[in-house]
Amino acid sequence: MTSTNQIPTIASIIQAHQSLKQSKPLVQCITNSVSVNFMANVLLSAGASPAMVDNPEEAAEFVHFANSVVVNLGTPTSALVEAMKLAIQEANSIQKPWVLDPIAAGALSWRGQLAAEFLKSKPTVVRGNASEIIGLAGLGSNSKGFDSSNDPAHAVGAARSLLEHTHVVSASGEVDHIVAKTQVNDKEKYWLAKIKGGSFFFPLVTASGCSLGALVAAYTAVTNPFNAVVSAHAHYAVAGKKAHLKVDAPGDFQREFLNELYKVTAEDFETYLEFSIEELDVA
Amino acid sequence: MTSTNQIPTIASIIQAHQSLKQSKPLVQCITNSVSVNFMANVLLSAGASPAMVDNPEEAAEFVHFANSVVVNLGTPTSALVEAMKLAIQEANSIQKPWVLDPIAAGALSWRGQLAAEFLKSKPTVVRGNASEIIGLAGLGSNSKGFDSSNDPAHAVGAARSLLEHTHVVSASGEVDHIVAKTQVNDKEKYWLAKIKGGSFFFPLVTASGCSLGALVAAYTAVTNPFNAVVSAHAHYAVAGKKAHLKVDAPGDFQREFLNELYKVTAEDFETYLEFSIEELDVA
Amino acid sequence: MTSTNQIPTIASIIQAHQSLKQSKPLVQCITNSVSVNFMANVLLSAGASPAMVDNPEEAAEFVHFANSVVVNLGTPTSALVEAMKLAIQEANSIQKPWVLDPIAAGALSWRGQLAAEFLKSKPTVVRGNASEIIGLAGLGSNSKGFDSSNDPAHAVGAARSLLEHTHVVSASGEVDHIVAKTQVNDKEKYWLAKIKGGSFFFPLVTASGCSLGALVAAYTAVTNPFNAVVSAHAHYAVAGKKAHLKVDAPGDFQREFLNELYKVTAEDFETYLEFSIEELDVA
Repeated sequence: MTSTNQIPTIASIIQAHQSLKQSKPLVQCITNSVSVNFMANVLLSAGASPAMVDNPEEAAEFVHFANSVVVNLGTPTSALVEAMKLAIQEANSIQKPWVLDPIAAGALSWRGQLAAEFLKSKPTVVRGNASEIIGLAGLGSNSKGFDSSNDPAHAVGAARSLLEHTHVVSASGEVDHIVAKTQVNDKEKYWLAKIKGGSFFFPLVTASGCSLGALVAAYTAVTNPFNAVVSAHAHYAVAGKKAHLKVDAPGDFQREFLNELYKVTAEDFETYLEFSIEELDVA
Repeated sequence: MTSTNQIPTIASIIQAHQSLKQSKPLVQCITNSVSVNFMANVLLSAGASPAMVDNPEEAAEFVHFANSVVVNLGTPTSALVEAMKLAIQEANSIQKPWVLDPIAAGALSWRGQLAAEFLKSKPTVVRGNASEIIGLAGLGSNSKGFDSSNDPAHAVGAARSLLEHTHVVSASGEVDHIVAKTQVNDKEKYWLAKIKGGSFFFPLVTASGCSLGALVAAYTAVTNPFNAVVSAHAHYAVAGKKAHLKVDAPGDFQREFLNELYKVTAEDFETYLEFSIEELDVA
Repeated sequence: MTSTNQIPTIASIIQAHQSLKQSKPLVQCITNSVSVNFMANVLLSAGASPAMVDNPEEAAEFVHFANSVVVNLGTPTSALVEAMKLAIQEANSIQKPWVLDPIAAGALSWRGQLAAEFLKSKPTVVRGNASEIIGLAGLGSNSKGFDSSNDPAHAVGAARSLLEHTHVVSASGEVDHIVAKTQVNDKEKYWLAKIKGGSFFFPLVTASGCSLGALVAAYTAVTNPFNAVVSAHAHYAVAGKKAHLKVDAPGDFQREFLNELYKVTAEDFETYLEFSIEELDVA
């Protein structure tokens, strides 16, 4: 799949952030039980609106109200999975952007099958940690992706291979690695954006990764997919870095992170964001 | 339905608050997945006891232990809905008060039907935001209630019409609007109580509305329905206002609000509560 | 069942804490909806890793990745219960330790039956509050255990009787009471360890008891069952006491408790822990 040809910059990130605050996109979250509360608070603090409409009876109907959808495989149940399928189908049919978060898909058989199936439905974005991206890319092969390194740098190849099915892939971690493709006059280019993550407390706050997936979905409602993924990660990283400076333990980090998601300004992106973008050599 | 003929005053609010702290009513919560944790903590901080017994196997049995019940339609599943039906039936049969929180009932078909059905079972109280109250009142008609203003002042007519099925209706928002009816010697009077909400951070903390519904249920166990609704909203507003004075972002508001729910004193109601009550003109 | 013959000491607690921080055991949590988020954050702050794999499709498969399992009956659903059964069976078959937390098992019929059934599968540890331990022990009789005192001292007899089915029983409360059995050369001894709980705010933070059950599971992955239970309760009590010194309300206690779980040092156990152990007279 081909994304926009516009390459993200600090200016386009700041622009997306302002659009998010103004339009407060409504994000339908079909997600795991651990994340529901924190994810909703992350979206609210960041400037978006959450709606956890996740039953099979209403999931497709609600897609019409939503501006975007996130599908997260953290704690799937039969009913949740049914709701995911219906929401994905509807989102595709009325062209609402949706994000796939394939938690542990490489490690467990049932969700692995589900993730592979969802991937065929062509999510707008795939977001996961390095192991999950490697695991998802390897689902057709024998690779499990469970023992793999957690360094997102090792997931770049896997991420690029997933671009067959999606516009943008993010492997988040200490340094988030975001891979996308542009096309100008039949000339394809691959890009790698890197964003420094902001705090070593993130992995100690449960659902912080899942909630980033929801924020990516929120940004897909206000800008092109590549810029959306980069902007969501940038918003997260800047808030995380500001929060990190004020605390020394996870209980406080959770609170300060919500505060800073809410407070982030255009200037903060310029002051705190560590962001680079490069063309990927497709050797 | 007819409530008590006693009109709430600051004194009756303070009295209800003291009764709550002394008797620690046990509130059975059949509620959405986003709210379960925060709702339990709100009840605990406010002085009540939560019990999230929400499966069809135990919901009716537990009503006998509970002092009141809250039924919240935020993320319904087939099993939750079955539990709600059984708990409502049992609550009515042994006369335990119960509160209906019809989240988004005007906007989505399945829960709209459910809310209309539950309304016929005559909840003690209906609590929602303005759109939800308008949506619920319009369920018999073609009105959807989704595009309506969020100003509770616009929900007063809808709230009054719902009094056919319940004792008290609350449309909460920046200024909470609470509508009830009294009857003395065949003479019916309608009342409108207004409580200023306390903080613009409430809508940025997910499940803060749902948890208010649970606190209303807690108060119905210790005082008459009209006074219960007013007292719960007053407790919330005073704690919210005190918390608001100390913070500048949602992460901190959530924490300080729980602190202040716990700390509210009789004097605080006198110092911070902005409360008025008037007879409604039924022209 | 017979536990190790090693009796816990401050030194063995500190040793277990260091092992936990180094090995970061992966705990599979099949638990109630109220607790999922806080439980995950408690495990992360304490130094362990949570995984809420709780569906029947994956529960048994995941036991192979997990270092231990906690099964909590707080809000059972048909699917959760099915997952619990499969996980318990697998844990027993490949000898992974697992903890049973029988929330309200003495009071409600369905979960009472389930708890009795799970008990027959011989959990490594049973953890509950006093009423729950008394209720669980009484399930074969007519005792309900719902009106019983909340003082763990009254649960010691019930706890001892449960040792037929498990290595260690903890009745937690203001003073946690932990009962275990040792056997040397056919000579059985019963032991009672007591740990002062640390803060009266614990009961005002929902899922703090449930999360202690998960932390017990984490410790069973790094030390013998008796030392694991004592170490988890000690870690909790020391963090709770340190947090208590800094706060005056439940919203702040929740945050500071997570901070202190993360910060606890070997010296803190020596400074703050109030711990005793005695031989139980089996008259």
